[in-house]
Amino acid sequence: MTSSSTLIPTIDSLEQPELHAALRQCIDQKTKPLGALGQLEALMLQLGLVLGSTAPELQAPQLLVFAADHGLTAQGVSAYPSDVTWQMVENFLAGGAAVSVLARQHGLALQVVDAGVAHDFTPRAGLVNAKIAHGTADASQGPAMSEAQCGQALQRGRELLAGLPGNVLLLGEMGIGNTSAAALLLARLARLPIEICTGRGTGVDDTQLTHKTEVLARTLRRHPDAQTPLAALAALGGFEIAMMVGAVLEAALQRRVIVVDGFITGAAVLVAARLQPAVLQRCVFSHQSAEAGHALMLRELQATPLLHLGLRLGEGSGAALAWPLLQSAATLLRDMASFASAGVSEAAQ
Amino acid sequence: MTSSSTLIPTIDSLEQPELHAALRQCIDQKTKPLGALGQLEALMLQLGLVLGSTAPELQAPQLLVFAADHGLTAQGVSAYPSDVTWQMVENFLAGGAAVSVLARQHGLALQVVDAGVAHDFTPRAGLVNAKIAHGTADASQGPAMSEAQCGQALQRGRELLAGLPGNVLLLGEMGIGNTSAAALLLARLARLPIEICTGRGTGVDDTQLTHKTEVLARTLRRHPDAQTPLAALAALGGFEIAMMVGAVLEAALQRRVIVVDGFITGAAVLVAARLQPAVLQRCVFSHQSAEAGHALMLRELQATPLLHLGLRLGEGSGAALAWPLLQSAATLLRDMASFASAGVSEAAQ
Repeated sequence: MTSSSTLIPTIDSLEQPELHAALRQCIDQKTKPLGALGQLEALMLQLGLVLGSTAPELQAPQLLVFAADHGLTAQGVSAYPSDVTWQMVENFLAGGAAVSVLARQHGLALQVVDAGVAHDFTPRAGLVNAKIAHGTADASQGPAMSEAQCGQALQRGRELLAGLPGNVLLLGEMGIGNTSAAALLLARLARLPIEICTGRGTGVDDTQLTHKTEVLARTLRRHPDAQTPLAALAALGGFEIAMMVGAVLEAALQRRVIVVDGFITGAAVLVAARLQPAVLQRCVFSHQSAEAGHALMLRELQATPLLHLGLRLGEGSGAALAWPLLQSAATLLRDMASFASAGVSEAAQ
Repeated sequence: MTSSSTLIPTIDSLEQPELHAALRQCIDQKTKPLGALGQLEALMLQLGLVLGSTAPELQAPQLLVFAADHGLTAQGVSAYPSDVTWQMVENFLAGGAAVSVLARQHGLALQVVDAGVAHDFTPRAGLVNAKIAHGTADASQGPAMSEAQCGQALQRGRELLAGLPGNVLLLGEMGIGNTSAAALLLARLARLPIEICTGRGTGVDDTQLTHKTEVLARTLRRHPDAQTPLAALAALGGFEIAMMVGAVLEAALQRRVIVVDGFITGAAVLVAARLQPAVLQRCVFSHQSAEAGHALMLRELQATPLLHLGLRLGEGSGAALAWPLLQSAATLLRDMASFASAGVSEAAQ
């Protein structure tokens, strides 16, 4: 593995007391009762701080869907066969998946990143070949990936951001078995019992959920020494999560707004935040999913998600659904009148 | 008052077992785990049922902001002076209010309906003169409006929908004092204590809230006989609420999708639903606001709102913010691939 000092950039805190005060004043003087836009006001403030402006403009939003396969599926942890990973990548590229439809609706530039799918794709527009291997190894038997592979995935994730236009990264993912990897990372990094981190993923039944939980408990016991964020990532997987960690770190370094989707993209943010806590200042959490561990993960990240729609699809679908709210926040901050400019009386205090 | 048989249309139930089954099958065969789009799937189903299609298209959405003044403000129930009603109408028309900005963002046709503002406006594009009077009377002293005025407001609300293009109505409102009217209607029609229906509105402090609650309790005692929906509406106000009741009924009759904003538009829907329960089948509840009584109102309406952002602005801002989610639901229903069409394997059951 390349030394982590070159792989892991230093992410500075965005503390900007003067800009913060200017934004607060700007928001409070808009023609509305104080605080009346609720959570959107926090979002307005955050977008202003990340983009360094009291009139932030979200530009050329890029939605990257990171796809990979998981050796752990050999243990029967998913309701769907692994082949669904590559089949869904084809569906993304053909425009028929939920995230494809939503990206078209909102004008989001969608690219699918093959971080490690167990399938050879025909090269084409919209598909980025960043394959580390044909799926991870079975983490219940040994490390999901080598330290070298983990370093490659991080590096490749960082490189993907170079030359990417705009100032917003929306995260999505696809990988049969990846709620298992995310649950393992949450349990390990947040020191939580695996039982409460494990959920139904794409829809396992009660018996399968019990089995999945047992497999994950055993997998954690198999890696007692994988306690640091990078060691846990390499031991537990997967390639798409590792590559997203790199992408998140680089996006944070470039002061992009990072729109996080659900449980699996959240796991990548958790790893990145354990490495560089200031990445969280750049992260907008799009939704709280129905996956059991996601509420715990959001609490661990001290995150307040925008949507609570009971989604559990992944793909970046939640990030895409929340996108108009970010646009609204930025547009309201730029375009709403102030009490003074509109000639509206203020509250009688 | 015109006899209610001509004012209140009969709204038929949308029960359509065959279409319901076809929509359910269509949704379940999309390339996603069963139920993975959560609350959006219920919305997909509802839009299909209202618009009578497994491929519904939302067309030419119309956002009507109903504005009026309230005589009850003489009792000091609001943090803002009544003049803010007409000042904000000017702000809507000038494009500087939150709802103006959001309507522009989403291409919603915005019209402001003067249902009874205590101000004479210069006529202009985007402003509909439907003024019943220069504000209601003080409901703590007598009826907010006469039965004849209430009938006129309902009738005018219905007429507004005639000739309105498209198949979606989004509701908004503006009226200093109208959280009081909405709280009164909720307490009376849902038989709830006024204390739990009363909130801070535009932002009264603790002392003012106590005073507001006392005024509202006294106002309810002043009208012991106003127990039917229409009698309560006339006694308690306001003109914008009464006109929205008419608009909601007519929109329901025309099978438009009705996007409800917050507490005050919800009060209009509550009255309309007490008159014709099937209107609720056409209503999409955009958000749960921070106003204290709104959660109770939504429960009374058995409504599941789309957003929980702590908004308390009104204007239709919540309806406009939720609008892209309706578009997403319709677009996903139309454009997502099925497992068969995309060649994706289904769950191994």
